[in-house]
Amino acid sequence: MKAIRQICARISEHPIFTNTIIVLIILNAILVGLETYSNVASKFHEWIYFGDRLLLWIFTIEIVIRLVGRKSLKSFIKDPWNMFDVIIVALGHILVGSHYVTVLRVVRVLRVLRAVSIIPSLRKMVNALILTIPSMGTIMLLLGIFFYIYAVIGTMLYSDIAPEYFGTLHDSLLALFQVITLESWASGVMRPILAEDPTSWWYFVTFIVIGAFVIINLFVGVIVNNVEEASREETPSPTDIKLAELQQELAEIKRLLENKK
Amino acid sequence: MKAIRQICARISEHPIFTNTIIVLIILNAILVGLETYSNVASKFHEWIYFGDRLLLWIFTIEIVIRLVGRKSLKSFIKDPWNMFDVIIVALGHILVGSHYVTVLRVVRVLRVLRAVSIIPSLRKMVNALILTIPSMGTIMLLLGIFFYIYAVIGTMLYSDIAPEYFGTLHDSLLALFQVITLESWASGVMRPILAEDPTSWWYFVTFIVIGAFVIINLFVGVIVNNVEEASREETPSPTDIKLAELQQELAEIKRLLENKK
Amino acid sequence: MKAIRQICARISEHPIFTNTIIVLIILNAILVGLETYSNVASKFHEWIYFGDRLLLWIFTIEIVIRLVGRKSLKSFIKDPWNMFDVIIVALGHILVGSHYVTVLRVVRVLRVLRAVSIIPSLRKMVNALILTIPSMGTIMLLLGIFFYIYAVIGTMLYSDIAPEYFGTLHDSLLALFQVITLESWASGVMRPILAEDPTSWWYFVTFIVIGAFVIINLFVGVIVNNVEEASREETPSPTDIKLAELQQELAEIKRLLENKK
Amino acid sequence: MKAIRQICARISEHPIFTNTIIVLIILNAILVGLETYSNVASKFHEWIYFGDRLLLWIFTIEIVIRLVGRKSLKSFIKDPWNMFDVIIVALGHILVGSHYVTVLRVVRVLRVLRAVSIIPSLRKMVNALILTIPSMGTIMLLLGIFFYIYAVIGTMLYSDIAPEYFGTLHDSLLALFQVITLESWASGVMRPILAEDPTSWWYFVTFIVIGAFVIINLFVGVIVNNVEEASREETPSPTDIKLAELQQELAEIKRLLENKK
Repeated sequence: MKAIRQICARISEHPIFTNTIIVLIILNAILVGLETYSNVASKFHEWIYFGDRLLLWIFTIEIVIRLVGRKSLKSFIKDPWNMFDVIIVALGHILVGSHYVTVLRVVRVLRVLRAVSIIPSLRKMVNALILTIPSMGTIMLLLGIFFYIYAVIGTMLYSDIAPEYFGTLHDSLLALFQVITLESWASGVMRPILAEDPTSWWYFVTFIVIGAFVIINLFVGVIVNNVEEASREETPSPTDIKLAELQQELAEIKRLLENKK
Repeated sequence: MKAIRQICARISEHPIFTNTIIVLIILNAILVGLETYSNVASKFHEWIYFGDRLLLWIFTIEIVIRLVGRKSLKSFIKDPWNMFDVIIVALGHILVGSHYVTVLRVVRVLRVLRAVSIIPSLRKMVNALILTIPSMGTIMLLLGIFFYIYAVIGTMLYSDIAPEYFGTLHDSLLALFQVITLESWASGVMRPILAEDPTSWWYFVTFIVIGAFVIINLFVGVIVNNVEEASREETPSPTDIKLAELQQELAEIKRLLENKK
Repeated sequence: MKAIRQICARISEHPIFTNTIIVLIILNAILVGLETYSNVASKFHEWIYFGDRLLLWIFTIEIVIRLVGRKSLKSFIKDPWNMFDVIIVALGHILVGSHYVTVLRVVRVLRVLRAVSIIPSLRKMVNALILTIPSMGTIMLLLGIFFYIYAVIGTMLYSDIAPEYFGTLHDSLLALFQVITLESWASGVMRPILAEDPTSWWYFVTFIVIGAFVIINLFVGVIVNNVEEASREETPSPTDIKLAELQQELAEIKRLLENKK
Repeated sequence: MKAIRQICARISEHPIFTNTIIVLIILNAILVGLETYSNVASKFHEWIYFGDRLLLWIFTIEIVIRLVGRKSLKSFIKDPWNMFDVIIVALGHILVGSHYVTVLRVVRVLRVLRAVSIIPSLRKMVNALILTIPSMGTIMLLLGIFFYIYAVIGTMLYSDIAPEYFGTLHDSLLALFQVITLESWASGVMRPILAEDPTSWWYFVTFIVIGAFVIINLFVGVIVNNVEEASREETPSPTDIKLAELQQELAEIKRLLENKK
């Protein structure tokens, strides 16, 4: 039993193993891409189905090898990326006979995401992004409250003038999302409403100034800050290098003082 | 009297109290959202009216408890968030019988903003944003002068060619706001004018280069800087940690020197 | 002579003097704004003309007072903001009788810019922006070369397909400016060309990736960096405060050592 | 031989030499620009052809001089900018007789890029940009996977509803590039699809939130960070200046301690 585990551990840590999996993920991506071309999909239907089944089983074996190679099930489960891999592959098995063809195909596409869990630099970047979620969360909450208030007011005021944008509360939320990306906010959304209600400009101008210029830039700030911290961790700044030198010199002075005693 | 204050103080600091208020604010938000669906609003009109009145009175009691729990009226008034809560709730009472239905409904929506004053992380973020107002103000003033000059020139030059955008000074200001968000500035605003006046491109190009590329990015700069300072305050940088170590070592050296005497 | 200079110096440094000038600049702005409303302009034509002349002379006297109050003409000329004021006011006198009505009116509008030279915080901000010109200049040059190459290639390839956008070299430059702001670049510019030449997507995609995602963000970087440096100069960071403390302690240790001798 | 090399080295380092080449590159740019105006091109065809040939030979001689002036061929090849110059000029000679008129003209336009390799500040900036490629690469890979997954899903779901945007996988990739630049994503792409499939909003909203708000801002972060590091290298921060002072003082204290022995 222990011998098997050691063999599995050695295999799963070997670069050839990882590279093979990356190649297979790329193959999976190509397969899934080819399937979207209807002439290819109908002609090589059998082959694509076979390739897909084969890849699913190879990925299953890969995960089993990685699982056996670990000291305990616990240490395997602890890493959320492993759970991500397990779920993605397991869903492929569970849904295999089902009639939800679209769901099954989406699951097959999502297998391409396994590249993130396999390639270390991607994994690191996504981990860093996930760490920004707490600060992102507060901004999202603020943005959410801001959106909700404007959506309710927008529905109250403009549901009759522009039913395609502000007809219902959820229409308004979508329209405001369009406005915050600044897409056709004036030519498409505001100007027709302005023609009916000449005071409606304040609604859009305040929404854009607060939403797009202030709150959205908070996102930019959080991400820029995060990138800077990540790069600072990788390469120490000249300030930190000089500080380390100072610390050494201080230690030397201390030694000198203590020796004299 | 003192006993009542102590009870109120204990209640207002209890997490259950805060969480209850948060739940009630969410209920208020849902109520206000449901009201925008006209079929729901007409069917449950009585219930929504009753719920709204009830929430208003609960919020009133909540504020009274928080007020009584404070040492003095002064310390309560000092916190601008308390004043914000009082005004939002008071407006609900004042406007209750009035005929300004829209104003009354807007006030009811704004009660959702109380979430900001109740949830600490939101309150902190908004406070941080408010601190950027002085530097924002200078940028706004610069932007204002810049807008005004371009609006006057635009009205002078293009009021006959494009009356829908540059007909009057306030039309021009709105059109320039649209241009600075880069929305349809070329396809909608500039190209029709360019067809009449082939030299008009300089007006739009200089406005965008100075306005959208320089001045708007000053906003980005102020906000990014603000986010960085806020995050620096929360988690000390490795530089600051090392500096603290250095300070300790220096103190030790000093002690050594003094002991020797 | 010397007495006059001292009086002028005292006047020009008095806050009431500065505030009066700010009020007059605002008046000038309102006047210039009112003039754009044709009904107001025709009704109060005489008054506006009179007010404008009066303001011009007051500004002239103001500059003379500030000039006389200085130690020497040289020290007055050295400050570029003074030269800016002189030119703006002088142009008003020079062009007064001319037939270039539009130019004259633009000069009158530009007088509003004097607010920048009078209000210290605005002056400081614009000075800081001017300091970024060297680094901006390099980016502009790079952007210029990049624009020129794409404009020549665009004219070569698409002048027949889309003459309204790529008909001549200067048309192409304007179209590329529109594309770099991402305004209707796909719906308006690329898709009609793509219908004729299905390989044209690479031209637009590479231009946007290099131009809008990389080079334009260099601007953002320079400005964000500039804002950060400016704020660092105003309020010292906690790191710098701690460093100053360390320096004090070191000085104390040195004194201890020297005393022992 | 050695004498020739020294002469060449002296010539190639002389500012007049560099400035002449810059002037010739500008001439080359003007020539290439004039050629796009068909009336100029047909009238002065001979002259433009002659000027182009002349410039090509002058650039060839320039590179030979710079090559001879170097200590060894190896040291010349090592600098990628030299190889860039050689390739750009060599392509002009290779393609001279060919029938690929468009390719030949593009090569002639690209000669303008030599300005980057000649002007030091541009060269430095482009070098700094090239250094960001590793971190850019990871973001690009993440963005690529993200694009691919959304493109496959988009083709699966909307190829029948909106064949002009999501007809095939490569159409979808182009449409998603348009969406990530936020150009007409709602008015042009989403709203027509939404009319057919009312649940399609999640596809676009999640794509924009993750792609345009998170991943694109990573680019901004990397570039802003890069600009900051570059400016830090040029002018040391006040923190670093103070650290250098501290280091000097420490050295002095050490000397004091050692002297006492």
